[in-house]
Order: sequence, then structure tokens, then C-alpha cells
Amino acid sequence: MESITQSHPYSTPSHCTADFCLIPIGTSSPSVSQQVADVQRLIEKSGVKFVMHSAGTTLEGPWDKVLNVIGQAHTMLHNQGIVRIQTDIRVGSRTDKKQSMEDKVAVVERLLGKK
Amino acid sequence: MESITQSHPYSTPSHCTADFCLIPIGTSSPSVSQQVADVQRLIEKSGVKFVMHSAGTTLEGPWDKVLNVIGQAHTMLHNQGIVRIQTDIRVGSRTDKKQSMEDKVAVVERLLGKK
Amino acid sequence: MESITQSHPYSTPSHCTADFCLIPIGTSSPSVSQQVADVQRLIEKSGVKFVMHSAGTTLEGPWDKVLNVIGQAHTMLHNQGIVRIQTDIRVGSRTDKKQSMEDKVAVVERLLGKK
Amino acid sequence: MESITQSHPYSTPSHCTADFCLIPIGTSSPSVSQQVADVQRLIEKSGVKFVMHSAGTTLEGPWDKVLNVIGQAHTMLHNQGIVRIQTDIRVGSRTDKKQSMEDKVAVVERLLGKK
Repeated sequence: MESITQSHPYSTPSHCTADFCLIPIGTSSPSVSQQVADVQRLIEKSGVKFVMHSAGTTLEGPWDKVLNVIGQAHTMLHNQGIVRIQTDIRVGSRTDKKQSMEDKVAVVERLLGKK
Repeated sequence: MESITQSHPYSTPSHCTADFCLIPIGTSSPSVSQQVADVQRLIEKSGVKFVMHSAGTTLEGPWDKVLNVIGQAHTMLHNQGIVRIQTDIRVGSRTDKKQSMEDKVAVVERLLGKK
Repeated sequence: MESITQSHPYSTPSHCTADFCLIPIGTSSPSVSQQVADVQRLIEKSGVKFVMHSAGTTLEGPWDKVLNVIGQAHTMLHNQGIVRIQTDIRVGSRTDKKQSMEDKVAVVERLLGKK
Repeated sequence: MESITQSHPYSTPSHCTADFCLIPIGTSSPSVSQQVADVQRLIEKSGVKFVMHSAGTTLEGPWDKVLNVIGQAHTMLHNQGIVRIQTDIRVGSRTDKKQSMEDKVAVVERLLGKK
């Protein structure tokens, strides 16, 4: 536990996957597709690897860069007049191997005999 | 607010989408693909509509049925000897229209000019 | 894996803890406190053990009962005219011991020397 | 939408609340209290405002600082030999007012006539 008493802070993981679902609150319309599209464009410009699905968007890259892009998405939508935003993020990191989003699905599909 | 004082409980939504990510805890191995594959088979047998992606599995159907299947997945894995399981669920319901998983993605892709 | 091919479905866990954060979408106001208060009243009437905190409400009880109450909350708010609702749920079950919400915090506080 | 085509990236929110639940995977033990305690100590040293509850820990502060501390927690536990970590984060930001964790609970309790 001596690591806890060190004076230097830890770095953040150099690689992670983060699946997020962003929700604008108080927008008067139940549709959020316009905002989701804007966020997709923002991510595309950022250069971070991403895949959209029906329940969120999965990002892959260095922790700081990935979480920074999600924060930028909040700011972008705040700038559009959305005063409150709530995002759910599932973020994972591992040190035993570098496993991409595609690898994760492929391993399960192989077990299921689908590939 | 008189609805709150009613004696009959509310029903649950007849339709919802639920994206879940299940994590076995204390399994000695960092790999969870075997458990994820077993859960996929369980869902397939249940008849609930589902799609797997790299950060979870999205279900679509009546609230009770969808949440019941996820609970069954916990029990199935407990029966395999996994003593602790934690699942994150993003569940949504709407009454203005019936929107499928595919519809949600299609709307955003149309806005992005990809379809 | 023979258990997977059985014809009888699994039961759901008899005990779980579920922490949820419910978000009404398209409400025109960024405030959700009125809805959160209504949900608290609904839970109180249900008899399910609960504790509210700043980022959600934690429930404790049988899987079916706990997830049913959250579904009822969706229906109650839909009945109030809120057409879209998104909820994030962190649900956990374990079979090695029955650990209450209070126990979980107490164990960590003891390790931190706060109790 | 011209904001999307700008060359300068957006900043991240200067204030947010983030409730997170960190799960070590492949630890052989179902107990995670030791890791949770270590993370509490790390946060305390970081100077970020925080409150622990039974289903997670809520942080409050600038986006970059808050998300950085959670990333540091991943690295700290990786350094202890935990090869895989999954965290669920509920992060919210709003621009209409600065609302603390305590404010959020107080507003609901007032509506419930408890304060």
C-alpha cells in the first residue's frame, strides 16, 4: 500500500474502451437524434476510434483523449442551448492484453460457433 | 398527484429497450467471454429480441420479460459457481411511438447522410 | 453447459441491490426533482427497502420486486405525460453472503479506520 | 451547426458531478472492499470533493480533474496486479445553475416534506 502515500499522482490508462449514452435534459422534444448526430460528427473530427450502436457509442483509445471527447460533447451541446446533460459511461481498461472492440465480439461469436 | 395514492400498483411498460453489461466478480480469470456466450444462448432460448455489441447486449420487448431474462442470467451464472455478479442496465421506454433498435440507428445515420 | 439446454427457465435472484437513476426526456424543464419525489413516494408505498442519494436511489430486495418497482415508476411518469424515460440501473447479486447496503459501506469505512 | 466545423476543439465542462462504481475483474475473491478503500484514499489525496455510498462514489468538480482521478484509480489498481477493471460512470453537467450534490438531495426532500 506504500503506493498510496506517494506524492506523485498516477497516470491514467494508455488504452481503454468507453461506451457512452448521452441524454440532453429539458429539451422539450423526446427526440435526441439530432444531438446524437452532432456528437458523432464531433467524435469523427477528434480522430478517436468509435462505433455507434442503438444504445450508445463505443470509443477506443487513451483514457485522457476518450474522456475528453465526451466532455467536449457536453460543452458543444451546452453551447447549442441545452442546459443539462447526463451521460452514462461504461469504461474498461486491462493490462494483460490489448483487446479491441472487434476482438471482444469475435471471441464470443467463436464460442457460439458463429464464426 | 392523486395517482400516487391509488391502491392498485402501476403496471410496467409493455415495451422497452434494455442494454446491459454483465460482469462476473471473483472469477480468477480476467476473461468473461465464456459467461457472455452462455448468456447469449440463454437469451436466444428466451425468445426476446436481442443484439450483441462489444460493450453489452441490447434487448427489446415487454419490461417484465426483458428484466426477467437478465435476472435469469444472474441465476444461471450463480449456478455455475460464480458467487457475485454486477450488471449495468440502460433501460428506456417511450409512449409517443414504438421505435425499434434498428430505427434509432437509422434515424441518426440519415441525419449524418450515411443512408 | 447442459444446464443451458434445459427446458425450464431459471428463476431470478431472491435478493439483489439495484441502484437506479431515472431521467425524463423531453420535459422542457431541466429540473427533474418533482419526478424524483414522485418516484420516492411510489417506492415507499411498495414496501421495498430504499435509500436516496444525490446520484440515484438504491433498492434492496427480491429481483422481481425491485425491477418491477422501477418499471412502475416509468409507467407512473408516462401517465403524467412524460413520453420518454431513460434509466440507468446498477444491479448486483451474490450467493456467498447476504450483504445489505449498510454492510457494504461499513466494511469500507472500517478499512479506512473511520469506524 | 457551424460550430461543428470549427477548427478549435471544445473545452470540457468546468463543473460536473460524476457517480462511479468500479469493479476489479479476475480477482479470485468476490470482495472488492479493499480496492474500494484504496480508491477512497486516492480520491481524498486528490482534493476532489466526494461522497461514498453503498452503490458507488460521487465526485464533484471540473470535468478533467474528476475523470482524471477515476483514471488514476484504474492505474493504481492495475499497479497492484489487477489486470482488468470496469467502471460505470454517471456524469452530469448543467449550465443553468451550479447545483451541488447536497442541493440535489435537499430539493427532493423539501418536496417530500422531510425538511
